[in-house]
Amino acid sequence: MSQAFMNLANTLMPYIKASLATPQRKVATAAIVAALLYAIRQKNARDEERVKKMLGDAGNRKARRGGKGNVDKEFFERIKKLLRIAIPSYNSREAVYVVILTGLLVVRTYMSIWLADVNGQIFGLMLFAIPSSTVNSAMEYYSKLLALAFRERLTRYFHTQYLQKMFFYKICNLDSRIQNPDQRLTQDLDKWAQSLANLYLNFTKPVLDIFLFSRKLAELVGWEGPGLTFAWYFLSACIIRVVSPAFGKLTAIEQKLEGEYRSKHSDLLNHAEEIAFYNGSDWEKTHINNKFYELHKHVKEVLYRRFLMGIYDSMLVKYGAVMVGYTVIGLPVFGPGKERYLREVGNDPSRITKDYVRNSSLLINLAKAIGRIVVSYKDVQNLAGYTTLIYEMKEVLDDLENGKYKRIMVTSNSLEDQEEEEQKNNGVKSIPSKTNMMDESLKKNHGQIAISNDIIFENVPILSPNGDTLIPAMNFQISPGMNLMITGPNGCGKSSLFRILGELWPIFGGKLTKPSIEKIFYIPQRPYLPNGSLRDQLIYPNTHADQKRKGVSDEDLQHILNEVRLGYLVGREGGWQAVNDWNDVLSGGEKQRIAMARLIYHKPTYAILDECTSAVSVDVEGHLYTYMKSQGITLITVSHRDTLWKYHEYLLKFLGDKQYTFGEMPEERRK
Amino acid sequence: MSQAFMNLANTLMPYIKASLATPQRKVATAAIVAALLYAIRQKNARDEERVKKMLGDAGNRKARRGGKGNVDKEFFERIKKLLRIAIPSYNSREAVYVVILTGLLVVRTYMSIWLADVNGQIFGLMLFAIPSSTVNSAMEYYSKLLALAFRERLTRYFHTQYLQKMFFYKICNLDSRIQNPDQRLTQDLDKWAQSLANLYLNFTKPVLDIFLFSRKLAELVGWEGPGLTFAWYFLSACIIRVVSPAFGKLTAIEQKLEGEYRSKHSDLLNHAEEIAFYNGSDWEKTHINNKFYELHKHVKEVLYRRFLMGIYDSMLVKYGAVMVGYTVIGLPVFGPGKERYLREVGNDPSRITKDYVRNSSLLINLAKAIGRIVVSYKDVQNLAGYTTLIYEMKEVLDDLENGKYKRIMVTSNSLEDQEEEEQKNNGVKSIPSKTNMMDESLKKNHGQIAISNDIIFENVPILSPNGDTLIPAMNFQISPGMNLMITGPNGCGKSSLFRILGELWPIFGGKLTKPSIEKIFYIPQRPYLPNGSLRDQLIYPNTHADQKRKGVSDEDLQHILNEVRLGYLVGREGGWQAVNDWNDVLSGGEKQRIAMARLIYHKPTYAILDECTSAVSVDVEGHLYTYMKSQGITLITVSHRDTLWKYHEYLLKFLGDKQYTFGEMPEERRK
Repeated sequence: MSQAFMNLANTLMPYIKASLATPQRKVATAAIVAALLYAIRQKNARDEERVKKMLGDAGNRKARRGGKGNVDKEFFERIKKLLRIAIPSYNSREAVYVVILTGLLVVRTYMSIWLADVNGQIFGLMLFAIPSSTVNSAMEYYSKLLALAFRERLTRYFHTQYLQKMFFYKICNLDSRIQNPDQRLTQDLDKWAQSLANLYLNFTKPVLDIFLFSRKLAELVGWEGPGLTFAWYFLSACIIRVVSPAFGKLTAIEQKLEGEYRSKHSDLLNHAEEIAFYNGSDWEKTHINNKFYELHKHVKEVLYRRFLMGIYDSMLVKYGAVMVGYTVIGLPVFGPGKERYLREVGNDPSRITKDYVRNSSLLINLAKAIGRIVVSYKDVQNLAGYTTLIYEMKEVLDDLENGKYKRIMVTSNSLEDQEEEEQKNNGVKSIPSKTNMMDESLKKNHGQIAISNDIIFENVPILSPNGDTLIPAMNFQISPGMNLMITGPNGCGKSSLFRILGELWPIFGGKLTKPSIEKIFYIPQRPYLPNGSLRDQLIYPNTHADQKRKGVSDEDLQHILNEVRLGYLVGREGGWQAVNDWNDVLSGGEKQRIAMARLIYHKPTYAILDECTSAVSVDVEGHLYTYMKSQGITLITVSHRDTLWKYHEYLLKFLGDKQYTFGEMPEERRK
Repeated sequence: MSQAFMNLANTLMPYIKASLATPQRKVATAAIVAALLYAIRQKNARDEERVKKMLGDAGNRKARRGGKGNVDKEFFERIKKLLRIAIPSYNSREAVYVVILTGLLVVRTYMSIWLADVNGQIFGLMLFAIPSSTVNSAMEYYSKLLALAFRERLTRYFHTQYLQKMFFYKICNLDSRIQNPDQRLTQDLDKWAQSLANLYLNFTKPVLDIFLFSRKLAELVGWEGPGLTFAWYFLSACIIRVVSPAFGKLTAIEQKLEGEYRSKHSDLLNHAEEIAFYNGSDWEKTHINNKFYELHKHVKEVLYRRFLMGIYDSMLVKYGAVMVGYTVIGLPVFGPGKERYLREVGNDPSRITKDYVRNSSLLINLAKAIGRIVVSYKDVQNLAGYTTLIYEMKEVLDDLENGKYKRIMVTSNSLEDQEEEEQKNNGVKSIPSKTNMMDESLKKNHGQIAISNDIIFENVPILSPNGDTLIPAMNFQISPGMNLMITGPNGCGKSSLFRILGELWPIFGGKLTKPSIEKIFYIPQRPYLPNGSLRDQLIYPNTHADQKRKGVSDEDLQHILNEVRLGYLVGREGGWQAVNDWNDVLSGGEKQRIAMARLIYHKPTYAILDECTSAVSVDVEGHLYTYMKSQGITLITVSHRDTLWKYHEYLLKFLGDKQYTFGEMPEERRK
């Protein structure tokens, strides 16, 4: 081996020396290299033109989801803020994990250096096996534990904010920045935590390696050793930068084409019915195929260029590095200090061989570490992507906390365009291009709220979810005992009225007097059945402890079930604690009667009954209405059933077109 | 180095010999090992119990999307069928790529073997650099080219099926097996092709390596060399199998818990409004947090077990393999043929060293190849997952071709449950548990279709998308010139009637007489504007060539635009060829008028106008209706505008509750 290495160095030198022997040759060599680089550069410049044309400004916008984020100042600020949540103090569990991990890293690196020394000695190797296995496994363990701890910490943080004051509702319904908070809080958060913890390991490890291996190598072969290695990598990187086509941008084009192709398919599905009616399959097929082949052609071209570049890359980096490596580890014998070295080892070939093996092991590790640093930059970009997603969540929740909402809205005001906008957002990937961010900053105190047992609307505007005015100024008043029927076509403001009453939406003007929310109960057509026991279905959102505190016995609950004609349920399902998938177990009518039972359990002052007995037979419905009235619950009913008119004394009629009437129920309806 | 290796072998032998020296010791060693293994096995058996409890039958069902599929007989059959599409013949482009790739693989492997021989010789290395770089880069190139070719081939195959006979509509609306054909056809197909092409490389490469390296090594050190290596890996695998906890199943539990946690979050969002009305945040928070901590606890436990197992793994496989390796490359000197070997090399240490370096290089490559085979099994599982997705697509399209549809339906027949079902399917991840697959096998010829210029419904049942009967037997007749107004509440069967007329849906009974689909034009409220030029908007689904063939000049088109009061459009947008995002550029009214212009261009016998002039002012609407009638187009109109009654002579009135009336338009409405 030592001979081989001497051969190498002996052979390598003359070539380099020959091409740089005379000043003329030096100039000639430099000129050839420069001309070559310039020619390639020119070709790439033409590429750039094309890239610019294809991507336009869009090249600057980045697809963020799961993709790469920008590693910029903003990223570092965001990650700093998130880290302050993830590692709250210097003696937190997370900080301890980081310290342990760092310790393990240092131990591992020193062990590698030590291994380079004992390489080939069986005792050393056997001694090394147990601690090395343990340290490596422990590193992975603590890195994952750290990720889990980060996740747990941020989950807790977000849950606290997200699950209070109906933010989970408001985030989707009042703010339009985040479409999928569940995704953010589960998968994205998990990936963020993992990529952060991984990054710590993947970045710190090579940095530490580079530092320690360089020092060790410098000790053995002088600073020329690692210096030469770095110089080579730096030079390679520079050359590749000049020579290489803009693969990043070519990939961006590829993704753009891929996205366009995908969205053609999505569009086809979104408009499947119209296209089918038009019999437009052939037209669509031509266009989809064209887009696919555009993508196909581009990918093929990029692949070819990657192939050429790959040859060049691997020659320069892989084999070039090997050459440099051989030179570096030849330094003791051929380098400036060779007399001293040879004198020291007494020209002993076996000693030279041993040094050679150790040095080459160090060198390989150094090269690997440099490679890992390069790769870990991609991890940073990934982390940046997830950080954007998570930070945005934090930002929106903070904004909600301060009563700020943002909506993406079309500038046009026509209702129809907004409808289309809505539809678009349901579609896949179609990004509205003519929209702009409007900071509504809905001033919560613009409208007044007062607390009383009456419900009084004074000039309260009723808006649609899009912000359109449905009723410019609503005025009516009811008191407990005044049962109200509400009628009108869809989309005229009934639901918006209830949302305002339920404090889900802010008031934009006027004055609203109403009881506190506990005293108003809303029952929708499709009742919500929480994941829990039969008891939970009845007393939700109370807990069993709440029930006891209220002094409601299980007999009372059974009595309520009897009233809604569900007395058999406790027996059938196996007791109050029975857990089941209630949405599947109960029929439509049973679900609605469970909701009524819940209402009776809570006995609110007002009950908003929104088509909530549509699957209940008319006679049971009648019994329920009578019973509720006898319990002192005031009814606010929306229903298409004529049979329900008679239980109400007042009528609020939405007429559409921003009109409504309010008054006593006409005599003929009360029959 | 040679000394180091002799040291090693000398040291290793006594230990092994000592523990197996006497029969008693052999028995004792075996007993200790067996007892240890049994104890660990028992512990794992207890785990299995827990796994079974947690996963139940669900443990057998696999999450397929992007995950791992079962590598079973079915998989091989499916991949065989798909491969027959992807590689249609032995002289296809794909087959050529496979041959090239195989050739490159063989060359590369021989080059590695050769490199092992020349290792350390600078000339050899430099000679090697260029071909090796080229071959490696070419392998990657052809592997990706193969993936691209597979993708192209299958894309073409699927497009042909998918984009004919309205399958893109039917696949989503008549069949419920595939929710997202666009995803399957784009991303999934791409991933399938890539994983197939990668697998070829990742599997063939190590197999070839193992074969060639073993042979070469056997030549040099005898078959004991590779034999011992394989034996060690096999033994390690067996031991690990016995000792290791069922990580696969623990991961399945983790995924299950992760899924449950995620679906709690999704449920929260799906029911956000009800929960907000109930003020149930605290209840939900408790439950979501509980689920998260259940997941957290499980993950933490699994991590700890992985940590322990990791130590064991790495000692057994990594360091164990190194030991075996040292033994193997010591075989020439210490093995059975040592006399012959030493005689051959003449006891020359430098020759021994050279052999040692070459043998260890071969051995390392062999070990790497074995490791890659193990890893590539995961790739096979991945491929199996994607194969399922792609094959299912093929299967469904084939079924559609044969007029077979399958729907997942709730067993219960009540309409309300089905509504819920629908809603559920829109929600994330909530899998209906009480559903079963119903093969409807809708017999297309059950109802009769006859071609005529009249539209005659004779006892044709009208069904909802869910399969509920909306009208048991529809009977009416209109002829060209008999303009028909259709009224009725939502969900009573209007759209279904149009779908039957447009041949989007099969007929289940009775007899339908109607013109061919080209003669019926359907215009929905929200018109479809294809991605294309201004001309395309008008003549869709005709092409420019079709337009010329029809003898329609651009002046004619301009005339049509004038009629719908869009004469300014060609000027504003910059000519007929102008391409734009028409959905954004045009206002709601302009879009609807474009759709009317398209109708006038095609001049069908019947026009179904489904609320399609809602954003057009009443006077323009009036002009359009008059103009269409003057062009001999018979109108079938659905509209809420009273002003449109007067253009129609007949009225089809859906009354809801399976009732309808058909007759002449009452006089008072025609005013």
